[in-house]
Amino acid sequence: MNEWKNLNELSAYQQLLKAGRVDLTKVMAGNEGSERVQQYQAPMAAGLKYVYAAKQVDADILKNLCALAEEAQLASKFEELYNGAVINTGEKRLVLHHLTRGQLGSNVQADGKDKRAFYTEQQERIAAFAKKVHNGEIVNEKGEKFTTVVQIGIGGSDLGPRAMYLALENWARKNGSFLMEARFISNVDPDDAANVLATTDLSRTIFILVSKSGTTLETLTNEMLVKDALNKAGLSASRHMIAVTSETSPLAGNSDYLDAFFMDDYIGGRYSSTSSVGGAVLSLAFGPEVFARFLNGAAEADKLAAGKDPMQNAAMLDALIGVFERNVLNYPSTAVLPYSQALSRFPAHLQQLDMESNGKSVNRRGEPVDYPTGPVIFGEPGTNGQHSFYQLLHQGTDIIPLQFIGFVNNQAEQDLDVQGSTSQQKLCANVAAQIMAFACGKKDDNRNKHFAGNRPSSIIVGNQLTPEALGSLLSHFENKVMFQGFLWNLNSFDQEGVQLGKVLAKRVLAHETDGALKAFSDMLKI
Amino acid sequence: MNEWKNLNELSAYQQLLKAGRVDLTKVMAGNEGSERVQQYQAPMAAGLKYVYAAKQVDADILKNLCALAEEAQLASKFEELYNGAVINTGEKRLVLHHLTRGQLGSNVQADGKDKRAFYTEQQERIAAFAKKVHNGEIVNEKGEKFTTVVQIGIGGSDLGPRAMYLALENWARKNGSFLMEARFISNVDPDDAANVLATTDLSRTIFILVSKSGTTLETLTNEMLVKDALNKAGLSASRHMIAVTSETSPLAGNSDYLDAFFMDDYIGGRYSSTSSVGGAVLSLAFGPEVFARFLNGAAEADKLAAGKDPMQNAAMLDALIGVFERNVLNYPSTAVLPYSQALSRFPAHLQQLDMESNGKSVNRRGEPVDYPTGPVIFGEPGTNGQHSFYQLLHQGTDIIPLQFIGFVNNQAEQDLDVQGSTSQQKLCANVAAQIMAFACGKKDDNRNKHFAGNRPSSIIVGNQLTPEALGSLLSHFENKVMFQGFLWNLNSFDQEGVQLGKVLAKRVLAHETDGALKAFSDMLKI
Repeated sequence: MNEWKNLNELSAYQQLLKAGRVDLTKVMAGNEGSERVQQYQAPMAAGLKYVYAAKQVDADILKNLCALAEEAQLASKFEELYNGAVINTGEKRLVLHHLTRGQLGSNVQADGKDKRAFYTEQQERIAAFAKKVHNGEIVNEKGEKFTTVVQIGIGGSDLGPRAMYLALENWARKNGSFLMEARFISNVDPDDAANVLATTDLSRTIFILVSKSGTTLETLTNEMLVKDALNKAGLSASRHMIAVTSETSPLAGNSDYLDAFFMDDYIGGRYSSTSSVGGAVLSLAFGPEVFARFLNGAAEADKLAAGKDPMQNAAMLDALIGVFERNVLNYPSTAVLPYSQALSRFPAHLQQLDMESNGKSVNRRGEPVDYPTGPVIFGEPGTNGQHSFYQLLHQGTDIIPLQFIGFVNNQAEQDLDVQGSTSQQKLCANVAAQIMAFACGKKDDNRNKHFAGNRPSSIIVGNQLTPEALGSLLSHFENKVMFQGFLWNLNSFDQEGVQLGKVLAKRVLAHETDGALKAFSDMLKI
Repeated sequence: MNEWKNLNELSAYQQLLKAGRVDLTKVMAGNEGSERVQQYQAPMAAGLKYVYAAKQVDADILKNLCALAEEAQLASKFEELYNGAVINTGEKRLVLHHLTRGQLGSNVQADGKDKRAFYTEQQERIAAFAKKVHNGEIVNEKGEKFTTVVQIGIGGSDLGPRAMYLALENWARKNGSFLMEARFISNVDPDDAANVLATTDLSRTIFILVSKSGTTLETLTNEMLVKDALNKAGLSASRHMIAVTSETSPLAGNSDYLDAFFMDDYIGGRYSSTSSVGGAVLSLAFGPEVFARFLNGAAEADKLAAGKDPMQNAAMLDALIGVFERNVLNYPSTAVLPYSQALSRFPAHLQQLDMESNGKSVNRRGEPVDYPTGPVIFGEPGTNGQHSFYQLLHQGTDIIPLQFIGFVNNQAEQDLDVQGSTSQQKLCANVAAQIMAFACGKKDDNRNKHFAGNRPSSIIVGNQLTPEALGSLLSHFENKVMFQGFLWNLNSFDQEGVQLGKVLAKRVLAHETDGALKAFSDMLKI
């Protein structure tokens, strides 16, 4: 039986607080630096690796982190989770997103069903539907094939699927898997829908309405804007719209939709990219085979995450180092910096995944914790970020830990040699250079040109951003966040912090306000 | 003559350190809260206002902040800047971006020219060029009109213009000003250009190559990828490409381009949206009249920023409150949260503007400062962010100051009443609700549903995001960042922190590496 203790109740954590500081300007220099790069690596799924040579850890600290993993029972807590325990204590729910891509432990029953079978069935239903759209069995009113898919959803129904779509768009174009263009409507701001509707051929478009409860304000409102536009174009909305929802929602078994595919309460929005929420749009855009490859990458990564040895478990090790940086070194934010334009929205997905999971001040039992938990997560792709906020990362007064991601090859394989190197080589040269610039800095008597160094980073390196590599990446971060939640003793699977705003917004719309809330409402002429 | 002192040498700052803490859960409640909303406002250009009722300030703190503004000579330092002093001490340059949209002080001469006349001339040349493209005087090889414009640039040549384009796209569609679609290529990752080139009709496209020096690695490499694609399509690159550069760069007076428009060393990339860098793409996309309206909004905001009274100078007041939050209350990051989908990339622009300007550890004389300077800036549009990282903002262990932006009306003016309110009303209700939820919180015996409140925010409110409103917003933040640089005694106009990475990347590409840098280069197969 696992014991759920606060981080500062663990003796390995107390030990870590006494650890000496690793000076990256020394350990990353010369032969020692070269050896660290070879040794400080952990394997990831789909041939990726996690390289933490430029993190402020050494053999002693790593040993302490392994002891922390053991004492915090990280591996057996994950085991408890994937075997179907009620890990989401706040909402009293199982946490089953891993089952959407594989089975790590025993069969899990819930709602009178084997849940792995349920998720697989939905995936197969989506695959069959997508095939019919692609081969012209399901067509528009005029008998024409659909060319575009628009996902209507917000939060986890938007950020993850959108990031995954962008991540594979160029790869699919190159590999003959670009079957339909995907677009997204999320914001309740009506200008979001207006823009998509103004630039999409409605007659050739399938809309996916994604809402687990079937009651998400933004999504239902946008559905109405879309239906209005379809009607005005003389199109029948029910021939252009499918739903992804729970079996008990008002959207299920509803003749307003061509079909409905299901999710359930055991998969949080931010963990739903491998469920029907990501499955429908990605299978339509790139075909079910590509989506299956993406799931395979994630399943392989989950298996690695189930390993007990942190040194061979990249997600667990990444989590441990992150907690060391947050709670021992006191760094309050982390930048995610993918050197891949395809991952342009991956940081936005991780921002939700991490900050919504672990941005909490009470433990699993609802008791306040007295240590910092989830950091601020932000980021943009390199090399773009280099010409933007890297100034602060290099020479600002705060230290921001960095998470680089890089690939040996690009996706479109269209490149040119300019001034003796390809664009891809320039891209990779930049990420290698940045790691070292951040770690070692550069002394200069002109303090304005001086770089102090000791700015820690890790890098995830892969050969190419394929569907499997993307699944590996996604699962890595999901599991990292889960392990950090275990370390901080948080419930990473609810989000009570989003409720108060919803309640007050309803009050504003009902004109049941006074004081400052009324004053702001008046100012905005609601 | 202005004295350039460090923040902690100022007696008003020492006074602020002794200030009591304002409890937002108290002052924002009841009648007092309502009164604060009415009183804690400062006017901005184009009818916008800056409302800081939910910031942790009171009459005493505001009085101290005004004393700080006086002691730090903020107004006369700005006066020195716009009259042409060498404010960029590192690079020994004038700082003249304000002159691209108006003249606040005396004529400024540099390089043997009146600079206001120079910037106006470039703007007029761009306007004439854009008119010729729009009316069909400048056409493609087949005599067809150009329909698309693609900006090739990175950093300030990308983030600002891209954010401004997206900000006005829907407005322009609604108001008959959507003349050409604009797209952007920035990253040296060849997949960035590949994606744009795969989805653009090259024969109808004008490319704008933007590089002040004419030597930016990413931009020149992407130019080659574009030229290669044009050549392969049987098109003549020189009929499809213009340059925005300095008069002394290799791109000026070069027959490879249809025409060239000029900027100079006195406008940093991140301050260049109102120069030719933003002017060319925005004038082509929406017409020179719309660009002129955008400049007018910025010019009006600059005039307000030149005022001496911080209580009537929103940019100065915002800067002062930000420094109070950073240096007295010790908050290390700030979230920018526009409730407008059109501002989806505005936070990314502000991230560069702020973090590249003030992410520094040495003062204007190159001496290390011993206080925190520029914070981490991040953000996404609301309501999207509510379904993402707001969990941490509400219930995380750190306090993150918030900068909301909201408009009474949307841009496309396509809306529907659903469940008794329009989408726009829902959007506005949400931002009003969030301000109060963050400020006042909500007590709950279930600690998981407890909101501590005391999370400070301000909001900029406008009627609609028009070109003038956008200019007002842009200038507000440029001037805020400038005033904060004055307070921290930084040079906000250089970026030495980006140099080391460039030097090391060149070394990698030349295979002149050893140690860890060689190990990383080998891993990435460069």
